[in-house]
Amino acid sequence: MASAPPVGYPPTDRTVPTRSRERAAYDREMVHGILDEGYVCHLGFIRDGAPVVLPTLYARSGERLYVHGSTGSRPLRGARADDGLAVCLTVTHVDGLVLARSAFHHSINYRSVVVHGIAHEVTDPAERSLALDAIVEQAVPGRAADSRRADAKELAATAVIRLDLLEVSAKLRTGGPNDEPEDISLPYWTGVVPVARTYGAPIPADDLDPSIPLPGYLPGRPGK
Amino acid sequence: MASAPPVGYPPTDRTVPTRSRERAAYDREMVHGILDEGYVCHLGFIRDGAPVVLPTLYARSGERLYVHGSTGSRPLRGARADDGLAVCLTVTHVDGLVLARSAFHHSINYRSVVVHGIAHEVTDPAERSLALDAIVEQAVPGRAADSRRADAKELAATAVIRLDLLEVSAKLRTGGPNDEPEDISLPYWTGVVPVARTYGAPIPADDLDPSIPLPGYLPGRPGK
Repeated sequence: MASAPPVGYPPTDRTVPTRSRERAAYDREMVHGILDEGYVCHLGFIRDGAPVVLPTLYARSGERLYVHGSTGSRPLRGARADDGLAVCLTVTHVDGLVLARSAFHHSINYRSVVVHGIAHEVTDPAERSLALDAIVEQAVPGRAADSRRADAKELAATAVIRLDLLEVSAKLRTGGPNDEPEDISLPYWTGVVPVARTYGAPIPADDLDPSIPLPGYLPGRPGK
Repeated sequence: MASAPPVGYPPTDRTVPTRSRERAAYDREMVHGILDEGYVCHLGFIRDGAPVVLPTLYARSGERLYVHGSTGSRPLRGARADDGLAVCLTVTHVDGLVLARSAFHHSINYRSVVVHGIAHEVTDPAERSLALDAIVEQAVPGRAADSRRADAKELAATAVIRLDLLEVSAKLRTGGPNDEPEDISLPYWTGVVPVARTYGAPIPADDLDPSIPLPGYLPGRPGK
């Protein structure tokens, strides 16, 4: 980076919500933290005048997000145009089910990041290589160096697009239910059920050489 | 329902992927199963010519999906127009991290459903009530009857939109890594790390009457 980015992302018309404004945040560290905890985003774009939302892997590297895919996939083809592809990239973590006494105040605790912008295809070989490593590392840190890197044929079949973190907001809800004062005496259980993404014990491939040990970086391995 | 729907959703240009067609499915039972396992979707729509993707709660009731929100929220206002709001509603479950020997064949196991269509505001009071119950039930089955239903003021503040299941596809990946034959002898661990959404022990609200027991329908309760 040529210079340190400012502390927060400047709010814009698109990133200031019309409701629950107190849940919106623009803090760069918070945004990075939410993005870094995930690896699957929902990428929105417009095709033939209609919205499309597809789940896909992503990675953050500094103030850039990367998404990859087949060179034949629709959003990646769209990003190849000189003016790029307008996208909205959203990452969401569900942290809890919030059970209020009233149906109306039921909610979920969550943390999400919404990024608006124009995605462009990455053509520079060094940046493409960095992005592909980053996408593997985002899901399983430590894995990129412990696998065979893409060869020329695989690289040619892979498109990478970049979305800069410029117009960005986080939104989150935390804490317990917010019941109306007159509901406090109602006879319903109230509280939060925590929700988390967890990892099971790794399942070796059928053809794995049994002399190869379970890598220390794997999520879900016993004792981790 | 006036008549039984056909077994599968008819594929359209929008629901046949350009790549990995073998991963797409149109079976109604499979689509319902994927939708019923979730409660947070990513809703895409167009605002001022640009795509927007927001996480939100949803429910399925037969061949309809419901989403609710404040009457002031942007997508719900858009759905109020006579011609409705073009949306894409996507639900994704991540089931595993797929670690191949080659970086190129890294993937995730997942199940997703993508619904394209026009969302309309629900104004019929009976259908609104059904939809609001369904949204609570989708996340915590058994909860709608064990909470205070919305009163007239709360109902007036809540908008409900409906999206019919007409143009729908599921997409999924299952199984182990698909390495190239020439990579089988490489010295890298290969297999799948299972991923799941799990629930922690319910946390009662500070002001909960301690004589109210933990309901039997709660996820995460001990012994469930």
